[in-house]
Amino acid sequence: MELYVNFNLPKEAEEELGRYYKIVKGGDLSGVEVAFVYRLSPEELKKMPKLKFIQVVLAGLDHLPWEHIPPHVVVAGNAGSNADAVTEFALGLLLASYKRIIHYSEKMRRGDYDKNLEVPLLQGKKVAVLGLGEIGIRVARLLAALGAEVWGFARTPREGPWRFTSSLEEALRGAKAAVCALPLTRRTRGLIRYEHLALMAEDGVFVNVGRAEVVDREGALRIVKERPRFIFASDVWWGRNDFAKDAEFFSLPNVVATPWVAGGYGSEEVWRKMVMDAVKNLVAYATGGPVRNIARRDDYL
Amino acid sequence: MELYVNFNLPKEAEEELGRYYKIVKGGDLSGVEVAFVYRLSPEELKKMPKLKFIQVVLAGLDHLPWEHIPPHVVVAGNAGSNADAVTEFALGLLLASYKRIIHYSEKMRRGDYDKNLEVPLLQGKKVAVLGLGEIGIRVARLLAALGAEVWGFARTPREGPWRFTSSLEEALRGAKAAVCALPLTRRTRGLIRYEHLALMAEDGVFVNVGRAEVVDREGALRIVKERPRFIFASDVWWGRNDFAKDAEFFSLPNVVATPWVAGGYGSEEVWRKMVMDAVKNLVAYATGGPVRNIARRDDYL
Repeated sequence: MELYVNFNLPKEAEEELGRYYKIVKGGDLSGVEVAFVYRLSPEELKKMPKLKFIQVVLAGLDHLPWEHIPPHVVVAGNAGSNADAVTEFALGLLLASYKRIIHYSEKMRRGDYDKNLEVPLLQGKKVAVLGLGEIGIRVARLLAALGAEVWGFARTPREGPWRFTSSLEEALRGAKAAVCALPLTRRTRGLIRYEHLALMAEDGVFVNVGRAEVVDREGALRIVKERPRFIFASDVWWGRNDFAKDAEFFSLPNVVATPWVAGGYGSEEVWRKMVMDAVKNLVAYATGGPVRNIARRDDYL
Repeated sequence: MELYVNFNLPKEAEEELGRYYKIVKGGDLSGVEVAFVYRLSPEELKKMPKLKFIQVVLAGLDHLPWEHIPPHVVVAGNAGSNADAVTEFALGLLLASYKRIIHYSEKMRRGDYDKNLEVPLLQGKKVAVLGLGEIGIRVARLLAALGAEVWGFARTPREGPWRFTSSLEEALRGAKAAVCALPLTRRTRGLIRYEHLALMAEDGVFVNVGRAEVVDREGALRIVKERPRFIFASDVWWGRNDFAKDAEFFSLPNVVATPWVAGGYGSEEVWRKMVMDAVKNLVAYATGGPVRNIARRDDYL
């Protein structure tokens, strides 16, 4: 079976896949039945009329040209492969912001030693976790272990050490902190608007480690400008990797920004793990084993 | 029974103590049998010949004038009262440093969007927790929940989701991170020296939320100057609240500094909880109940 790969594979991945597939890296793709991709263009799709299965190395699938993918082609994502890394980062962004570590560390560098800002306890406080996928569940469990009153928001009920709600308003009302780990789908694009963020505590901390586009950009900008004690901490930005487009945010003292480094983009080690997890799924496809992370087409179209 | 109090009491604390003690705030201390203090001077001690019991509102007892306290006087500290707050802060300092959130957030503010530094996974990595008291135990459990390989160092073996060692060298050798929550006693003063820090990974992260003096100042300065990838993150400084004395550290890019705000000094809410926990102990002393956190005199003399 021919496998098209359009990004640099680590050697161990190439060796493993070579046992099950004939790897094709370009040229004539007319015999390709399976594609292992990072991004995928409509032009590449056109060259693969026999395509049956697309394995994406990233956890998110929002960037695929869905309208060009025929309905019979199965698409698998890679959720979970970077979940541990992103969970660590999400908890780091939350605590660095919530415990005012960023604030105080910037002040200490400037030689300003005033203890001018209260460092609140997280224990016993309402914290919303938006999205109960591989990342959200892990984050919610750790927050519960820290003693926070965790509210889990998702489309489908999931049990755990949190109060479940399918109402975004209920999750955010009065919350001292929120961690967003929602996937970007047609249902979540622009879901979190100004009026939702405004439901949080005046000095609330909103953390995003999912996709920027889940949050309405103007709503986020308005809340941080209106509420100097509110903190917006995010690893993902609307300009994607063109961070200059969102520079307006980065200069604000109550914005904590990192350049999309929570998962595979920030770490060779995590990237390698992501590739190898995806390789396992490709081997499962080739050998008739159970294939994980199959996308729901109607989430995107 | 007369109780001497030498700091501002919240109203609820004064009311509760008033039920069991006659509160004295200054003047004639000759009838005082119990003291509830923040700091205590040799001069104050001299005025209280009938003193039997000292309750300190702080978790640490290193600042007391031990050589002036008669051996028959029982001293109680307040360990545990700020443990949840300091645990949250310790985890925040660790993750903010380890996941390079401080590094990237400083870069983003400057408009530098390069992903120039690997963000390592914590999962599966060796992390040392120095001190297995109220804070150390909580930190160690959370690190274990994050999937780290936790090594617990203390004088006395304690069981938990960590490998116990009473060897500082074994705890730190090859560790990617360490969190120090040791009390400052005559045994721990200057305990952690350059050669111990040098055992850690080249890009290791050392976090201190205990007392600065547990770490040798020159050793810490040498390691951060010698190893640009090593990170020294601390809430406590040798100059205590005179932070200017340690300004040499704060300008270094691989030092993360906060101004002693992890516990009661950073939060009214935490301070109030500390006072009320200490009040409970004073009530126990007055009513013959079990008194907690009694200090071992030979830890300090």
